Amino acid sequence: MIKAGIVGGTGYTGVELLRLLARHSDVELTAITSRGEAGTAVAEMFPSLRGAVGLKFSDPKDAPLHECDVVFFATPNGIAMQQAASLLDSGVKVIDLAADFRIKDVALWEQWYGMSHASPALVAEAVYGLPEVNREQIRSARLVANPGCYPTATQLGFLPLVEAGCIDLDYLIADAKSGVSGAGRKAEIGMLFSEASDNFKAYGASGHRHLPEIRQGLARAAGKRTVGLTFVPHLTPMIRGIHATLYARITREEDFQALFEQRYAAEPFVDVLPPNSHPETRSVRAANTCRIALHRPQGGDTLVVLSVIDNLVKGAAGQAVQNMNIMFGVDECSGLSQVPVLP
Amino acid sequence: MIKAGIVGGTGYTGVELLRLLARHSDVELTAITSRGEAGTAVAEMFPSLRGAVGLKFSDPKDAPLHECDVVFFATPNGIAMQQAASLLDSGVKVIDLAADFRIKDVALWEQWYGMSHASPALVAEAVYGLPEVNREQIRSARLVANPGCYPTATQLGFLPLVEAGCIDLDYLIADAKSGVSGAGRKAEIGMLFSEASDNFKAYGASGHRHLPEIRQGLARAAGKRTVGLTFVPHLTPMIRGIHATLYARITREEDFQALFEQRYAAEPFVDVLPPNSHPETRSVRAANTCRIALHRPQGGDTLVVLSVIDNLVKGAAGQAVQNMNIMFGVDECSGLSQVPVLP
Amino acid sequence: MIKAGIVGGTGYTGVELLRLLARHSDVELTAITSRGEAGTAVAEMFPSLRGAVGLKFSDPKDAPLHECDVVFFATPNGIAMQQAASLLDSGVKVIDLAADFRIKDVALWEQWYGMSHASPALVAEAVYGLPEVNREQIRSARLVANPGCYPTATQLGFLPLVEAGCIDLDYLIADAKSGVSGAGRKAEIGMLFSEASDNFKAYGASGHRHLPEIRQGLARAAGKRTVGLTFVPHLTPMIRGIHATLYARITREEDFQALFEQRYAAEPFVDVLPPNSHPETRSVRAANTCRIALHRPQGGDTLVVLSVIDNLVKGAAGQAVQNMNIMFGVDECSGLSQVPVLP
Amino acid sequence: MIKAGIVGGTGYTGVELLRLLARHSDVELTAITSRGEAGTAVAEMFPSLRGAVGLKFSDPKDAPLHECDVVFFATPNGIAMQQAASLLDSGVKVIDLAADFRIKDVALWEQWYGMSHASPALVAEAVYGLPEVNREQIRSARLVANPGCYPTATQLGFLPLVEAGCIDLDYLIADAKSGVSGAGRKAEIGMLFSEASDNFKAYGASGHRHLPEIRQGLARAAGKRTVGLTFVPHLTPMIRGIHATLYARITREEDFQALFEQRYAAEPFVDVLPPNSHPETRSVRAANTCRIALHRPQGGDTLVVLSVIDNLVKGAAGQAVQNMNIMFGVDECSGLSQVPVLP
Repeated sequence: MIKAGIVGGTGYTGVELLRLLARHSDVELTAITSRGEAGTAVAEMFPSLRGAVGLKFSDPKDAPLHECDVVFFATPNGIAMQQAASLLDSGVKVIDLAADFRIKDVALWEQWYGMSHASPALVAEAVYGLPEVNREQIRSARLVANPGCYPTATQLGFLPLVEAGCIDLDYLIADAKSGVSGAGRKAEIGMLFSEASDNFKAYGASGHRHLPEIRQGLARAAGKRTVGLTFVPHLTPMIRGIHATLYARITREEDFQALFEQRYAAEPFVDVLPPNSHPETRSVRAANTCRIALHRPQGGDTLVVLSVIDNLVKGAAGQAVQNMNIMFGVDECSGLSQVPVLP
Repeated sequence: MIKAGIVGGTGYTGVELLRLLARHSDVELTAITSRGEAGTAVAEMFPSLRGAVGLKFSDPKDAPLHECDVVFFATPNGIAMQQAASLLDSGVKVIDLAADFRIKDVALWEQWYGMSHASPALVAEAVYGLPEVNREQIRSARLVANPGCYPTATQLGFLPLVEAGCIDLDYLIADAKSGVSGAGRKAEIGMLFSEASDNFKAYGASGHRHLPEIRQGLARAAGKRTVGLTFVPHLTPMIRGIHATLYARITREEDFQALFEQRYAAEPFVDVLPPNSHPETRSVRAANTCRIALHRPQGGDTLVVLSVIDNLVKGAAGQAVQNMNIMFGVDECSGLSQVPVLP
Repeated sequence: MIKAGIVGGTGYTGVELLRLLARHSDVELTAITSRGEAGTAVAEMFPSLRGAVGLKFSDPKDAPLHECDVVFFATPNGIAMQQAASLLDSGVKVIDLAADFRIKDVALWEQWYGMSHASPALVAEAVYGLPEVNREQIRSARLVANPGCYPTATQLGFLPLVEAGCIDLDYLIADAKSGVSGAGRKAEIGMLFSEASDNFKAYGASGHRHLPEIRQGLARAAGKRTVGLTFVPHLTPMIRGIHATLYARITREEDFQALFEQRYAAEPFVDVLPPNSHPETRSVRAANTCRIALHRPQGGDTLVVLSVIDNLVKGAAGQAVQNMNIMFGVDECSGLSQVPVLP
Repeated sequence: MIKAGIVGGTGYTGVELLRLLARHSDVELTAITSRGEAGTAVAEMFPSLRGAVGLKFSDPKDAPLHECDVVFFATPNGIAMQQAASLLDSGVKVIDLAADFRIKDVALWEQWYGMSHASPALVAEAVYGLPEVNREQIRSARLVANPGCYPTATQLGFLPLVEAGCIDLDYLIADAKSGVSGAGRKAEIGMLFSEASDNFKAYGASGHRHLPEIRQGLARAAGKRTVGLTFVPHLTPMIRGIHATLYARITREEDFQALFEQRYAAEPFVDVLPPNSHPETRSVRAANTCRIALHRPQGGDTLVVLSVIDNLVKGAAGQAVQNMNIMFGVDECSGLSQVPVLP
């Protein structure tokens, strides 16, 4: 049994980790920390977990994290970079669901995240946890940087094209829409039901923190220093789900459908739909799946890729469990066989 | 392995049965019928089931239903009563998720459902599938009438009080609220997003088909011929969930909290919350659980019981699987360990 | 022109007052205060008001409130009771949309609201602003206590029966459902979209502040010291709207439909629907109307009244404008002719 | 008073026309037709109109449409083209809210709409009713083709750039998101609450009927035969609202913000927000306004335009009323001064 700890379990990625790990046959939940809620039963805060999770939140200082085999950081940005080193030194593997170790260029990270990095050395060591790209490195990693939700949906949608070198890398467009849970469980006026319901808006159109992460991933796949990407995120009135609509200009003809199907043929969590499908976010609700479809409107030179995930699963907690499975050599699908909840 | 068939799998209870049975370790999905969709892959109609369900819909005439161990009817009212006898004769057990066998008084059934009953004899034989009341009879039943969604939430909320005989049975009130999926997957204007969203209304306030079913269950528990119940259902803008708010006048003092806790102490799918809790429908979303809480406002003589279920799970498909488990002697919780999806 | 000021215009009742007053032909918006937003253009905070409201928020200390003819308090409880006296002394009329002056029994108010009352004398003077009950007193009032949202829907639904003395006043039940905007524009976790959407729950089932207000109004109508009322509020995933489902035991036969129609025949903002109707909250969305329907299930002795309002209009800002119209002798419907927005 | 008739008033654009016209001080509602609902009071079908609209639906054959000054067609495509000629011959002006007269190239129209056109001659005469482009022609038009919802939001967002000739017209991208009311009041499974709620999807990504309409408008503004546009519509779980996110490659530097502000300086219903704003659809809910904002991410060569409207108002009924006002020489804003409903 893998002994698992969670730092910061009171947010949405934390409670989603609990939902998944509580039924994972290879995992024993060992500790979950929360400074503010120490002593409270997890199931008192989240009654959905009554009967499934018996743990109490413990104070970070008292939690037996060093006795875990793996610790997940479901914390705000800037926490894991301070605590990971100590855990790694104790032989504990670390999966950070925040952004601390995602960007290899530390200066760029500091610019977008507005703080100094506390562990630049660990940034170099960390493996970017997108299994569809880095599975082998994840296998032997001590420290995994779990990808962001937008970057997961966007990279999986662009990757086959970028790797094949058949599109114009100077003018990629990612128009992405996220459910509100992507903003986390924070008391912010803009995320109130009465503000976010029956409403649609873009945000961060001039620059969002996931932009450099996506660019880094695509550039790496292209073997280039950078790519030209315009990324506009939007908030849509649903709880879970990301829908990325991707636009690319074709530079070389291919059987694009076949390209995608072959690229992901062996991937357990990427599903390429038949041509001209329209994946719905609910078709992956509560499951660790990315579904992708391709369109070529009017046979022109623009390719449209539609890519959907559940931001809390394949975009966060589910991908973290997938990474854990790989790191510990258990079945990659273990604990991740949930059928999407529809309707 | 229990070989299971589903008649009428294109509605919400059908697709929910598929979600649950696809991961049930004791079940082999054998057939699913749909006259209109014969030949279509189930996963083509419901992409959420891609990779989980490989079956195609088959025409009712060709489907190997007689080779199943159990057949679920996820059909409109009036279908199972025509087809059950033939299956039962072949030794197939039948669980009807519609209303055909719920009401013992056939004349009363015909009045509320507006049709003649095709199998009155089977009505007499059928066991009302509320395990918390009829577990032993379900164990040996050939034919189970799976309860309605409102009746499940309402009866579980009233039962301890009715059985204990400590409330006024002439003046019970059940104010119930349902998510829209309770109306089924039928193209009706009133259930359109643009009609049902951002809106709240009562319906059937003068009389709803679930009224006689609830009355029958409560009267039986009370050992009376009838009870006085006012039942007003409402439509609330959410997909899944029923919240029943129940009002009863106390006629004899009891430790009501203890009464509920003892009544359901051994029940795997009924969770009595601490006093003065407010169960949320999302705390049971996608899970086979009923959560109940009690209030006694201002210490007066009115007791308020709050009871929540997922109408598609404990209110339909999940309870049907629970009944199947009991009928076939497998672990009652088998295939029903899903943790509620929150948020 | 009536010169109107608003204290505390950054909440939902404030912005709704602005929406209504901006197009009120007898009103000139003169000042709106907000300590936190002083200097900010109102339309910068609420872009929906661009082109309709040119005012800036001003600091309460600098605002020319004493030059207004009427000042609305759209503030949290406990503010108006401190500031009203000074305005009244200057000849300014005051309409408080919070609860400070609603409960005549000051001790009872202090118990439910958890603070000492700063102006008990004004409580005695204040007129409870339910025009359907107190129109004549409102006409000459200096200070109006605008009713709460639940109390408006509930009282209008019960009043004809209570006044006629034909129901059992010891056992009234009000099961009320509110949209989320009723909780105000405050950053609270429970009101986040990801918490309140696709979810239904009761709250305050053991006691809610609107209970004594409703009891006071019904007792007064009955000419009694008190009435027995159980009141359970619920949160439903929509922005605006209250639906009260009221249950009363009949003690004397009446033509109840005629009773309601006659009681409200001359009321411009109460609409009695045909028998057995089910009013929807959206049928009053963004309008100052209360729609009411009656049911008598199975011809029994329980009467069911369904009453809907928009909590921000007839339940708050619209009723405040209606009161202002009455106080200043302009057409009671002036500025309140909006047709409900449907869908 | 302008005597106005509506053909086909049972859909969402019909009821929205009624909401607007019922309070329009220059209009007298004269007739509204519905074959299926003839004889039914409009307010019985739409209780939101009780007290505001006293008309009954009349059979198209009996309706006094020829006595109207203007008739609005709020019908499915293919109706107005059959009935407009007769009305025009009688001197009645016609505004078609459907697509029959929007596309000048009749063959292209027939290809996208799948039927033969019944009145090609009227297509030539019809004026495309986008006042921001064709105000002068609308003034003297007998027949106005009211623009589609997506085309309104998209054209208003692109027009200043296209007219100025400063972007690459071969590679325009319009990623548009619509509320569900855009699909109309038709009983379709895909538009059920349980299907469309808590869900996001693209549709028609390979080709949508509004594509040729948008292309026609942009090409005309550019003085070209055609433009290269990729248009992908999406369904978002809200009732009203369209958000168009537009991407264009800059070919010549301009002060783009000034360009937009000047282009729309005199337009009463187009509001250019300050730079880097993010217009929300709710900021125009129930109002005849288009709000637009510009972004230039990272100062690169891609311009992002965000454009929002209420699809039922500026995208349908409101724009139709605006066109009527222009056609009859009354104040263009008459009847259209509603403040957006927020929250």
